[in-house]
Amino acid sequence: MVAQTFNLKTYLNQRQQQVEEALSAALAPAYPERIYEAMRYSVLAGGKRLRPILCLAACELAGGSIEQALPTACALEMIHTMSLIHDDLPAMDNDDFRRGKPTNHKVFGEDIAILAGDALLAFAFEHIARQTQGVPPQLVLQVIARIGHAVAATGLVGGQVVDLESEGKAISLETLEYIHTHKTGALLEISVVSGGILAGGDEQLLARLSRYAQDIGLAFQIIDDILDITATSEQLGKTAGKDQAVAKATYPSLWGLEASRQKAEALIRSAKEQLHPYGSQAEPLLALADFITRRQH
Amino acid sequence: MVAQTFNLKTYLNQRQQQVEEALSAALAPAYPERIYEAMRYSVLAGGKRLRPILCLAACELAGGSIEQALPTACALEMIHTMSLIHDDLPAMDNDDFRRGKPTNHKVFGEDIAILAGDALLAFAFEHIARQTQGVPPQLVLQVIARIGHAVAATGLVGGQVVDLESEGKAISLETLEYIHTHKTGALLEISVVSGGILAGGDEQLLARLSRYAQDIGLAFQIIDDILDITATSEQLGKTAGKDQAVAKATYPSLWGLEASRQKAEALIRSAKEQLHPYGSQAEPLLALADFITRRQH
Repeated sequence: MVAQTFNLKTYLNQRQQQVEEALSAALAPAYPERIYEAMRYSVLAGGKRLRPILCLAACELAGGSIEQALPTACALEMIHTMSLIHDDLPAMDNDDFRRGKPTNHKVFGEDIAILAGDALLAFAFEHIARQTQGVPPQLVLQVIARIGHAVAATGLVGGQVVDLESEGKAISLETLEYIHTHKTGALLEISVVSGGILAGGDEQLLARLSRYAQDIGLAFQIIDDILDITATSEQLGKTAGKDQAVAKATYPSLWGLEASRQKAEALIRSAKEQLHPYGSQAEPLLALADFITRRQH
Repeated sequence: MVAQTFNLKTYLNQRQQQVEEALSAALAPAYPERIYEAMRYSVLAGGKRLRPILCLAACELAGGSIEQALPTACALEMIHTMSLIHDDLPAMDNDDFRRGKPTNHKVFGEDIAILAGDALLAFAFEHIARQTQGVPPQLVLQVIARIGHAVAATGLVGGQVVDLESEGKAISLETLEYIHTHKTGALLEISVVSGGILAGGDEQLLARLSRYAQDIGLAFQIIDDILDITATSEQLGKTAGKDQAVAKATYPSLWGLEASRQKAEALIRSAKEQLHPYGSQAEPLLALADFITRRQH
């Protein structure tokens, strides 16, 4: 049976390599070199490629192919990278390190870092619109609309703004949930759901993918907050303890570490239950849910 | 005859009002209020709406309706505004005034200004994908792909990067042309061409629209450079003489003022010739070409 032989490590390695190659090809160096260098520096900095892999896995679960989802998968990583580059800017989180390397603006300057983010965001939409093959155009438009929604003031940016406004303040659980469902949750959710849309999945499937993604998204964020407290900077590849240093509201600060861990585990169980009807087809997404809780950085 | 009764002022007023209302509705205030305020502050700051109007006029010339092109027209203005907000940042051109008002970051802070630009860029693509009606989806995808191309490192951002790299240096005419065809030309060109695509225009029409737009785009930039030298800050609504102060390469600095004026006029003539086959249907685009050379700010 497929389910018994499924090996997450092999699966992740294979998918990461596919995504890596596709990203490098999509961002092949050209004139003006410096902006391509800056984009490639951050995009090809060796992240886990969680968003692209979720997109590819959801597309396969829904009966689609890797090829149908690969341009969208790459676009999601470009957008995620844009958000990291802009977050790290001195006017934002002012971070010097990311994934163990100096941040984009530390290497290329603030001006180029801002522009690299802008270019990645614009190119992401071009890439989906131009490169997606074998998918009805109205579905591609749906994916573009929903990704735009997940990034704009209704999504990632909205979450960022409320996060910035909440710094150093005592905030409600409601506000904290708004921040997380928007700042990181929205893009994770559309990463999964877009894979289902591109494969032509029906409403019921998309709703299940959506709930799966919301649950792992929140679990992901809680674990991020926990790691910020418990891990060292070396393990994280970025400055640890940063949230505490700037008095950012986090789940551990509201609930404590142990209750936060339990909440994350409950969310992962709930996420996996959503995929129950799909049997062995769901193996990669089930394993990815576990992978998120087990990560150490 | 329509051609004889065409009144540019009435036409521009009417179109500006349509665009203004559509932009305000598209960016209706919501939570988190501060980011919507920031986006609305710059988008609704009363620009000429040249890009949206070019898009609408090209769509009509090609036999389409205002309704088909309005979401794209608004998206083009959002993207243009994003580029202005990010350009004005301290790390970039460091401008305090724009259209006679304090720049976005002066009012809302650098962090919100960066995020407002990001949100506008992402929302622009969502808006086209979600709101465009009565156009075959594959044509909408084509518009999205070409707008992305006109904004990313292959377009506006590429032009910005070379412009930044050229500051204070003696540069070749070739480099200056690269800067202008990318920094301002690419978005102007797709503003016109997208109108033609949305109306289902054929290759020949799109090629003529493209050449028209390239010519007026370059003329527009040359006149911008001339105005930077000859106009006062009050007339411009932004800091005048800025290009000279930072030793930016401009056409007047390469050719002198008078030769630059002549070049701009020749380009406008050439732009208008492209539209010769379309008779009175071309009146708005012909008048817009003249409008660009006559502007004082």
